[in-house]
Amino acid sequence: MLIHSASQLLTLAGGPQRGPDLGRLEIIPDGAALIRDEKILVVGPSRELLAAYPDEPLLDAGGKVVMPGFVDPHTHAIFAGDRSAEFEQRLQGKTYLEILAEGGGILSTVRATRTASLEKIVNETRSRLWSMFSYGTTTAEVKTGYGLRTATELRMLQALLALDKEGPLEIAPTFMGAHAIAPEYRGRPQEYTDFVCSTMLPVLRQWWPHNAPYHEMPFVDVFCETGAFSLDQSRSIFSAAKDMGFPLKIHADEFDNLGGARLAVEFGAVSADHLVKTSPGDISILANSDTVAVALPCTPFGLAEAHYTPAQAILQAGGLLAIATDLNPGTAWCESMQFALALACRYMRLTPAQAIAAATINSAAAIQRADRVGSLEPGKQADLLILSVPDYRHLGYRFGINLVQTVIKRGRIYPN
Amino acid sequence: MLIHSASQLLTLAGGPQRGPDLGRLEIIPDGAALIRDEKILVVGPSRELLAAYPDEPLLDAGGKVVMPGFVDPHTHAIFAGDRSAEFEQRLQGKTYLEILAEGGGILSTVRATRTASLEKIVNETRSRLWSMFSYGTTTAEVKTGYGLRTATELRMLQALLALDKEGPLEIAPTFMGAHAIAPEYRGRPQEYTDFVCSTMLPVLRQWWPHNAPYHEMPFVDVFCETGAFSLDQSRSIFSAAKDMGFPLKIHADEFDNLGGARLAVEFGAVSADHLVKTSPGDISILANSDTVAVALPCTPFGLAEAHYTPAQAILQAGGLLAIATDLNPGTAWCESMQFALALACRYMRLTPAQAIAAATINSAAAIQRADRVGSLEPGKQADLLILSVPDYRHLGYRFGINLVQTVIKRGRIYPN
Repeated sequence: MLIHSASQLLTLAGGPQRGPDLGRLEIIPDGAALIRDEKILVVGPSRELLAAYPDEPLLDAGGKVVMPGFVDPHTHAIFAGDRSAEFEQRLQGKTYLEILAEGGGILSTVRATRTASLEKIVNETRSRLWSMFSYGTTTAEVKTGYGLRTATELRMLQALLALDKEGPLEIAPTFMGAHAIAPEYRGRPQEYTDFVCSTMLPVLRQWWPHNAPYHEMPFVDVFCETGAFSLDQSRSIFSAAKDMGFPLKIHADEFDNLGGARLAVEFGAVSADHLVKTSPGDISILANSDTVAVALPCTPFGLAEAHYTPAQAILQAGGLLAIATDLNPGTAWCESMQFALALACRYMRLTPAQAIAAATINSAAAIQRADRVGSLEPGKQADLLILSVPDYRHLGYRFGINLVQTVIKRGRIYPN
Repeated sequence: MLIHSASQLLTLAGGPQRGPDLGRLEIIPDGAALIRDEKILVVGPSRELLAAYPDEPLLDAGGKVVMPGFVDPHTHAIFAGDRSAEFEQRLQGKTYLEILAEGGGILSTVRATRTASLEKIVNETRSRLWSMFSYGTTTAEVKTGYGLRTATELRMLQALLALDKEGPLEIAPTFMGAHAIAPEYRGRPQEYTDFVCSTMLPVLRQWWPHNAPYHEMPFVDVFCETGAFSLDQSRSIFSAAKDMGFPLKIHADEFDNLGGARLAVEFGAVSADHLVKTSPGDISILANSDTVAVALPCTPFGLAEAHYTPAQAILQAGGLLAIATDLNPGTAWCESMQFALALACRYMRLTPAQAIAAATINSAAAIQRADRVGSLEPGKQADLLILSVPDYRHLGYRFGINLVQTVIKRGRIYPN
């Protein structure tokens, strides 16, 4: 299939973009892309490709932007239920601690997820994945972490593997038994940490190859934060997970700086995420590593907080910056990477070009898939979007609606 | 047609909601609505209506929320072109004054609109109206104001009347020759004001009944702001317009408080809009009048500004509060009232119920149509939404995507 007549074909060629280099879209005006066997075979000017492949079935992009599908590298998309009542209570003046005392917050989603049937969880999650897909996300990381006991966490992973297989959205799974202290271990975080290290992770290490023999290892993620896991506890979990060969991720510096970003660099983690309260020193350490800094602008927005990830400082220090939605039922129920871009432009001062690179090739790097997705280059997966607009700068500029007209996943066309 | 099995049927019955009364949704659990001749005939519990009207064609709401269509009472949806390049320049550090000096800002949209063919303007506007409609807006106010000369302003009105007739979105047109000082009158705001009063408005007064004999008079709106029209100039325009029988609206206190809100009350304007810098004294005067206070949260969001309309103060003073998108190509290109609600909850501290009332029955009042739309009551237009969620509180809580599954306009079904 030959997709032609794109006003701008954004290839994002050349690999992940570091520091001030962020924002190289590598635009082909009046561009075209030839797709064979679910992959990009060649990109170039429409005139050349139409002449070179005269018998190819055509898809006319109609003078609109064609670009790689978004890669969302941080989501908690698998859960049951919702916390809409809690959202209303907060607006009526109830404090977070009051809600927590009544059994609300993250533990209410844990309760809902533990008690829901697998079918219910899969159905609810599938509907979110389709929503993400229709807004242009063709690959997404999805974390467990609302089980907080071995069986439920593995059930979530099982569901993610099944949903990945079902498609069309491709899932990079993450195990996050260390998302919060399990309610059974209330007040005993060290014991729960030991349980994660000595039981959950070893069981996972055994379980995985039998259940996903075709699949690379899942990420292991830790919430390093006051009220969740301390720096030492995070270090124990990282240490155990690394010894077993798991690639690492961390939730760091969302509300407090406990040193999570430095820990990520020390352990060669794939990404460090949130990074709102990261100190200049930690930014410098992170920016000089290969750990990708993942900003989650929907979360401060969801909470109406004023502070966002200091993206400009990360770029000036030469870091690898990506953005994600953080889709979750508490702070940011948002399936749209387009909206994360709109926030990144306004509150992290990224240009639309920078936000696009951070949401495609760099976010692919944040889940170790930059060799397969995130750009339109020969040999890469044919994951593309046709937007409904003629200029890429409409992304970020316009907000609240869907500017994706057609999603193409592994060469298959899904019109919106 | 009988729409039944709504988990919650929000009727918003009882007319516009003043002050702390805002947020009365009047929910019918497991609700139903009977539609005849494009109108609501009766609402009630599903079981009762299904028994009373056994031969009616059925539409199963499937356990989701049914509510009135959104009424968007403040948009600049009719224009040509876009300002995406300017958005990028601002993010690259160019100041608004530099952009203005290069011919950017509102006057670049005036240029694009003046030079575009009527067909192009209508096509571009139609696409925005459909987008608004699919996100749940069934009635919208739309302002002229990118012509700034008589012929172009009237051409815009003509286009709005044609688009209204075409449907399905219903349009309440507003004449806004006083949106900015026309470029021909640069530095001579008083002369342009005189021109609006002595030429534009009288020509409009003659033109209207010949071109829209079936239609009530359009609103006349003024941008009372530093750099636009002073309080005295706004007063002259209000005075001339009122004498000719036009209902009035005003853009007041967006960046500076010039006294526009008080002027609105003095002249019995239908609404005063923006109201970011309104003083406590002016809030009190406004809240004790029948002039609706229209908050436009997408505009500070679009500009990444910290200050929003002080909705709580307006409600405590007993005011009539509505919300709108302010859809425009400069500061807020957003078609979605759902997103305006999400902002209103976070930055104006409205509960979802308050935001919904402000976006339906109260916004209908802001365009003098609360007798026809904005609630589901016998005799009102059958303008309804079926959401994709079981609880109204998902509005506001979730953001960035479309939670409307089906739009029903005058009894006709438009699935998303």
